[in-house]
Amino acid sequence: MKVSLQELRELFKPKLRPIQWEDSNNTLVLLDQSALPFQTTYVTLKDPEEVASAIKSMKVRGAPAIGITAAYGMVLALTSRNPNTLEEALRVLSNAKQVLDRARPTAVNLSWATSHMLNLSKEAIQDGKVRNVSELLVALKDEAGRIFQDELDAELQMGLYGAERLNDGDTVLTQCNAGGLATGTGLGTALAPVRVAHALGMKVSVIAPETRPWLQGSRLTVYELMADNIPVTLVTDTAVGLVMYRGMVQHVMVGADRILSDGHVFNKIGTFKEAVIAHELGIPFYVLAPVSTFDLKSRVEEVEIEERDPNEVRTVRGVPIAPERVKVYNPVFDVTPPRYITAIITEKGVIHPPFDKNVRKVVGR
Amino acid sequence: MKVSLQELRELFKPKLRPIQWEDSNNTLVLLDQSALPFQTTYVTLKDPEEVASAIKSMKVRGAPAIGITAAYGMVLALTSRNPNTLEEALRVLSNAKQVLDRARPTAVNLSWATSHMLNLSKEAIQDGKVRNVSELLVALKDEAGRIFQDELDAELQMGLYGAERLNDGDTVLTQCNAGGLATGTGLGTALAPVRVAHALGMKVSVIAPETRPWLQGSRLTVYELMADNIPVTLVTDTAVGLVMYRGMVQHVMVGADRILSDGHVFNKIGTFKEAVIAHELGIPFYVLAPVSTFDLKSRVEEVEIEERDPNEVRTVRGVPIAPERVKVYNPVFDVTPPRYITAIITEKGVIHPPFDKNVRKVVGR
Repeated sequence: MKVSLQELRELFKPKLRPIQWEDSNNTLVLLDQSALPFQTTYVTLKDPEEVASAIKSMKVRGAPAIGITAAYGMVLALTSRNPNTLEEALRVLSNAKQVLDRARPTAVNLSWATSHMLNLSKEAIQDGKVRNVSELLVALKDEAGRIFQDELDAELQMGLYGAERLNDGDTVLTQCNAGGLATGTGLGTALAPVRVAHALGMKVSVIAPETRPWLQGSRLTVYELMADNIPVTLVTDTAVGLVMYRGMVQHVMVGADRILSDGHVFNKIGTFKEAVIAHELGIPFYVLAPVSTFDLKSRVEEVEIEERDPNEVRTVRGVPIAPERVKVYNPVFDVTPPRYITAIITEKGVIHPPFDKNVRKVVGR
Repeated sequence: MKVSLQELRELFKPKLRPIQWEDSNNTLVLLDQSALPFQTTYVTLKDPEEVASAIKSMKVRGAPAIGITAAYGMVLALTSRNPNTLEEALRVLSNAKQVLDRARPTAVNLSWATSHMLNLSKEAIQDGKVRNVSELLVALKDEAGRIFQDELDAELQMGLYGAERLNDGDTVLTQCNAGGLATGTGLGTALAPVRVAHALGMKVSVIAPETRPWLQGSRLTVYELMADNIPVTLVTDTAVGLVMYRGMVQHVMVGADRILSDGHVFNKIGTFKEAVIAHELGIPFYVLAPVSTFDLKSRVEEVEIEERDPNEVRTVRGVPIAPERVKVYNPVFDVTPPRYITAIITEKGVIHPPFDKNVRKVVGR
């Protein structure tokens, strides 16, 4: 596929822009994901408190999207407080970091982004690179824009590697929402190859399983693909086997929450079943994730699989669907052993088996 | 396992009795399955019209349960109309058959049961075995009771064959509801081994996937097992892979809607994925079905897989969970190839691979 990253940047024009910075009036505009897919509404944020509240109420979700949002939250600290001196600006930024970090204490990308923006400010002041608050504001706006662009570039690169594997007319089975909503760029990880192929004029389509209990497939994946006119079909989680058996799918592409050095992939519950069936039927199974997803230290038996509230299984959107007192096992993630994975696609390159040798060559930390 | 069918009949005392005939006042009492699991209510039926209405409104569901109910509907024709002569009785029964058959025109067990009851009446009259309406009523009551008992005996036998494969402490993964609610006996097919083992004092438990889109797992399977104090855990359909991977399941046991002579099994959507994963992980996968389930004529490519209303996937209990206009593929059944099946358990014996040779030996039609 003869197309450069630069050309791809020009070509990729998503209709859906989950995170938009409006420079003319210094506001951050977020697509309210908590209302999807029933209402497409945008919220306009003017200060770090409003950003923290939007993160807390899940108006924005997905690790990369939260990181980008928090970076702009730090910019809004300066524009809303209008500090007079650089010393005052650092106090304002430091307070804003505390407010933002509290919004979702376990989100690593959040505190990474706020720390990064605060440290960058301190260094720029120390080094004399910025001499007043206006110059600091410009530097922070640039950096937030760079965080967004770096994320998008990584996804474009993964999308390109993945799209090279697709043929015209192909259908991709995915799982959950590893799309442009989760990353905030409008592109995504698992959906990047389909979106890149679509931008390049190829005919490709997606089958999205609903992904109980949170229904990210029916709520988010189908919504974002429909918004960009990419053909998508919704199925229940029970139907993924039949669609593969019937030859309706040529590739499986999923994201990842954590990838170990030997190639074990932790991802949304339901990923493992797709991997086993794809392997059995000879359908390529790809994992798409940036190198930041790799955990080169842990062994598979050391990673705890989070379990969540049983009521997520007993109810749907607050409506009971099972006996109130039924015992429930509600794991959020499952683990896919390396033998079921065709390749892991990162922004730094495509990793093929044997993963225990090849992961470190590409991820190299 | 040293226990006879007769001993098992005495031992098996389900708390849940979906279909009960009350001889003292000639009424049929049905557990209203359309209200489960939120309300446990019973409806009392006194004539064929009420029975037809209960079948139509899904108060009773499952092929064997509908057959038994329809047989009692024919009995109620006599008790509600009180014909004076045998000729009048035959007219009453013939009308009742029409009323009942219209309730669910595609239900084979329904028209089989009404035809069987009508033909038996005609023959008994012709042969002089019954000489008046009272004797005909006794004969029909006996026959309806026999249909029920034959169904229960077949399930007890399948349960016994299946229970012989279980060990104390085992957990069985199932799919959908192939239990006592579907058959009307309180025992079932796929759940029969667990229920028989439980009746024999063994410690066994069940993991029930919710089974979207109809949620028979969360609505019916967990309900009926909880009613009989058999330990059951509800999981999403996405979690079936992880529970097998983690060694939480020692056997998979499912029912069947149609089994071909070469061992291809058509069953509720989602069965195939359990079969493939069980096969991959070395977990025995059993199909439990009476010999009436076998279709020895069709080839796998000739069997159409029914698709249902997309709104079953777009909504849950009437609540929208996806964009209104999203394209949906909603197949009701999937097909499991014979290579993934450990054995097919029928009331006439256990069928092992190679199925293309061994099915006809046991089913023998």
